Amino acid sequence: MREAVEKKVLGENDRVASALRLRFRERGILCVNLISSPGSGKTTLLERTLAALPRDSAVAVLTGDIQTDNDAQRLARFGFPVRQITTGGTCHLDARMIERALDALPLAESSLLFVENVGNLVCPASYDLGEAEKIVLLSVAEGEDKPLKYPGIFHRASLMVLTKTDLLPHVEFDAAAAKENARRIHPQIEIIELSCRTGDGFDQWVAWLGAKGRQYRAEIAAPAR
Amino acid sequence: MREAVEKKVLGENDRVASALRLRFRERGILCVNLISSPGSGKTTLLERTLAALPRDSAVAVLTGDIQTDNDAQRLARFGFPVRQITTGGTCHLDARMIERALDALPLAESSLLFVENVGNLVCPASYDLGEAEKIVLLSVAEGEDKPLKYPGIFHRASLMVLTKTDLLPHVEFDAAAAKENARRIHPQIEIIELSCRTGDGFDQWVAWLGAKGRQYRAEIAAPAR
Repeated sequence: MREAVEKKVLGENDRVASALRLRFRERGILCVNLISSPGSGKTTLLERTLAALPRDSAVAVLTGDIQTDNDAQRLARFGFPVRQITTGGTCHLDARMIERALDALPLAESSLLFVENVGNLVCPASYDLGEAEKIVLLSVAEGEDKPLKYPGIFHRASLMVLTKTDLLPHVEFDAAAAKENARRIHPQIEIIELSCRTGDGFDQWVAWLGAKGRQYRAEIAAPAR
Repeated sequence: MREAVEKKVLGENDRVASALRLRFRERGILCVNLISSPGSGKTTLLERTLAALPRDSAVAVLTGDIQTDNDAQRLARFGFPVRQITTGGTCHLDARMIERALDALPLAESSLLFVENVGNLVCPASYDLGEAEKIVLLSVAEGEDKPLKYPGIFHRASLMVLTKTDLLPHVEFDAAAAKENARRIHPQIEIIELSCRTGDGFDQWVAWLGAKGRQYRAEIAAPAR
């Protein structure tokens, strides 16, 4: 019975997500969905990203948490539209929450929309939010076996961002093994290693976002679709 | 409808957990349920704990993961009974999984039974496993606001173990704020700070387990019950 309900809930979510995806495409909005364990550095990466962008960039953020609007407060300082989604106990964002939050978010045409999911390496992987790309973050403080233990999200993400690389000298973390494990689950996964503290690798992340934006706009402009 | 099913599932889980709790009490088994984000150091803490115990101690471990039996392999090296529970996608352990796993676990009277939950700071908090104590681990690499963002588990845990304190000089983590946040959610929560790498604070953890064992056995021996 439980599985039947889960299937029904996911089916309903998929319908709403498909409508969102169409809406994003019609407006040229590139939506990326950031997923990781609590404390892997999603908000810090977004802070640094917003700080690096020209103030007139078309960028907005939806940030999810079970409780508190701490993250929205941290991110609002940069002057871009930011809304908190507080799930009140639910362990993931779903498409309906995104749909509702969009009503209150000033979102320009051709924006880059960051969705920061609830900190949870498991459940958010199952909920399509209409995003163009899922991005998984893994901190070097967490352990290199995580892609094997939590394959769902590594399978679905197009990019793995290995965060907090400044801690590498201080932790027992085998970055080569982490990358190999991610590729065992998902051979085509792209990988960026960075530290928001030192800035190492950050340019690669900005370049990745730029390239994805160009690729997305080329796709939706293509007459074949 | 979804909430009704969740309630039913949790009700069914509570019944199985109550039976387990009774069974543990009858046999003097102290069961502790370790919950944290992925990579906070549950397995490492257990490795160090098993290494520190006399080889004839009555101790056993059930360790949960979505995929892989890596943790059971890591923990079996110490010579105590260890079984892996592989959930195959489910984001938490439930009481029925514990009940089934116990069939295959040689468990002496008056044992200390460690249950290492799936790495997830959200969902495992809702599932009673019949344990005497829930223990939440938080690594200093994760951020001091986590108790406020994930209040469920901090509310239910009797102990918070702040792990990886050797990293404190290398991360922006305010340990005083983390403890204050945990106590805002749960004023009576006990707190131990430790590093499995340096061994700092580890004695306190071993002492806590010993004290809990004595307290538990005194409670179940009390004629008033």
